[in-house]
Amino acid sequence: MSVTVALDANGADLGPAEVAAGAVIAAELGVKVRIFGPADQIGDLPDGIEIVDAPVSIAKDPDPARAARSTPEASIVQAARAVAEGQADALVSAGATGATLAAGLFEIKRARGIYRPALATPVPIPGSPVTLLDVGANVEVRSEHLVQFAFMGAALATTVLGQQLPRVALLSNGSEASRGTTVVVDAGEQLAAGSHSSFEFVGNIEGNDLAADVADVIVTDGFTGNIALKVMEGISQAVVGGVRDAATSSARAKLGGALLRPALRGFRDEIDPEGPGGAYMLGLRQLAVVSHGRFTRYGFSQAILLAARAVNGDLVGRTEAMLEAGGALRRAGGAEADSPSGGVASFSPDDS
Amino acid sequence: MSVTVALDANGADLGPAEVAAGAVIAAELGVKVRIFGPADQIGDLPDGIEIVDAPVSIAKDPDPARAARSTPEASIVQAARAVAEGQADALVSAGATGATLAAGLFEIKRARGIYRPALATPVPIPGSPVTLLDVGANVEVRSEHLVQFAFMGAALATTVLGQQLPRVALLSNGSEASRGTTVVVDAGEQLAAGSHSSFEFVGNIEGNDLAADVADVIVTDGFTGNIALKVMEGISQAVVGGVRDAATSSARAKLGGALLRPALRGFRDEIDPEGPGGAYMLGLRQLAVVSHGRFTRYGFSQAILLAARAVNGDLVGRTEAMLEAGGALRRAGGAEADSPSGGVASFSPDDS
Repeated sequence: MSVTVALDANGADLGPAEVAAGAVIAAELGVKVRIFGPADQIGDLPDGIEIVDAPVSIAKDPDPARAARSTPEASIVQAARAVAEGQADALVSAGATGATLAAGLFEIKRARGIYRPALATPVPIPGSPVTLLDVGANVEVRSEHLVQFAFMGAALATTVLGQQLPRVALLSNGSEASRGTTVVVDAGEQLAAGSHSSFEFVGNIEGNDLAADVADVIVTDGFTGNIALKVMEGISQAVVGGVRDAATSSARAKLGGALLRPALRGFRDEIDPEGPGGAYMLGLRQLAVVSHGRFTRYGFSQAILLAARAVNGDLVGRTEAMLEAGGALRRAGGAEADSPSGGVASFSPDDS
Repeated sequence: MSVTVALDANGADLGPAEVAAGAVIAAELGVKVRIFGPADQIGDLPDGIEIVDAPVSIAKDPDPARAARSTPEASIVQAARAVAEGQADALVSAGATGATLAAGLFEIKRARGIYRPALATPVPIPGSPVTLLDVGANVEVRSEHLVQFAFMGAALATTVLGQQLPRVALLSNGSEASRGTTVVVDAGEQLAAGSHSSFEFVGNIEGNDLAADVADVIVTDGFTGNIALKVMEGISQAVVGGVRDAATSSARAKLGGALLRPALRGFRDEIDPEGPGGAYMLGLRQLAVVSHGRFTRYGFSQAILLAARAVNGDLVGRTEAMLEAGGALRRAGGAEADSPSGGVASFSPDDS
């Protein structure tokens, strides 16, 4: 099936032309792309890519929920609307997380039976990619939200990362089932008692297990997940930076660094944050992917290609089927107090 | 002033003799040590070190609170009692966090005006050591607990790490004051409004700021702090391991690694987890320090020396004075529902 992706080209540090260059790579591999962005900054594009001139950006707006509502001409809102109206199959945004979540919630809307959309990030761990969710959409959660996140993350791991029967864990401050906040312990009991043939629940894991290949999907609330993800980024950079500094501190060390560099290349590729294309917004009626604003064309092309793979694998349908089979769909007419905008007010407005 | 430290020698991976070897190093530098552990595994000791034969260990007990209560002869309970009775000025434990917190709470007891003891870890960040608390004593907290942790951490940074006017931050999922859980946002408002001449409140920081030298003390709840600390450990190890693997992958890379090694030594020393000696249990009537069970004699000696420095700097008295000056002491007779044992039930039983 030929997939069409609606792409918001605003919000990237390197500008809309770099985002469009990513679209060109993806189009060469068979994905149709409809770009929403400033046409005068993008220029001519090959077949398979269409441009809708949408110069207005709300990527840096401090109140993305309000901006998405009051700016129908914004590129991210137009792109989301194109997905909602069936002109595209998935949404890819080049930067602002908050604006993408707001536009996604208002235009694409929550999927049936979902309490709260969640943001999932495939973490580039060497040798063992891990999907972490929620990384910032829901700062405060209830246990049934965490249970749904387990199914949503497992569906992503199966569909996009090709992991059969992914191992799903809860992130906690101890590996025993009794450890964690009340919400985490409750979610663990529900997941341990539930029947889910589509993933294996492996219980609680601790922070140092993130890189220990003990789980494929790690479930947490958006406060903890956001902090865990950013600690990971900060510490990786600090350690890599420390090694780099050492490798320029003397003539001898410089020579050592030069000799070591080719061997480090494979390792560096494995932990390249652009590889997974960005974060996946799960729980909407169609998939949205938010790239990091710092990405180059490679990262944007990965986002488009992985979104297309999710569409071809019917991520949304598979998620619903898994939730239904596991008895974890939100009950229709239940006393759910959430507004339709879910956790958008507490959402990270911009990670670019 | 000559300080005496009560040292529990049980719980270390390398055994009680390694812990005692750490005590010998500290004794040579002028600290008196009273060791509680199996005398037959320790042997002769020089002047300034006394041994109390206490072979019973509860370091690995799955229910440390119950074990501390029901095992008065356990080495950690005897060591804590020696501190409570004035025979020693501070408690140092070679391993089990849960048992140390339990014994500390039952024997040494909470300091006046403290809601909850907290566990603080000086994180070995290159160039900019950072104190993170709570890292596991209190899984669920109220905003007034976080406010007290700010004062407790600032007192530690001033007394033990020699940081004048430390910058204190709240760990959150965004740097704006509006970002975070309700508890974090409330604590931020109280800290921003309060007058505290002993530290500078710099607001919210994100996970990637941990290594960015923007704060000296980072305050969070014990669930998030435990996860952040362990993510840091796991990712550092994974990155260092990845570099090491690359440096043995070919003859050329091996040569590069060998040339680079001397330059990396300084960096490795800076991120050595044994440097800070372990975690500091703050909020008791005397200080307790919990080393990591994996430590060598160097780490145990650091724990003893830093505990002595805290005693000489009157950490406990200074904490109380700072809380009092900032109006953050727990009100006597207030409606505090906590049991005297604080968060011990939710405490990480063993990090060794």
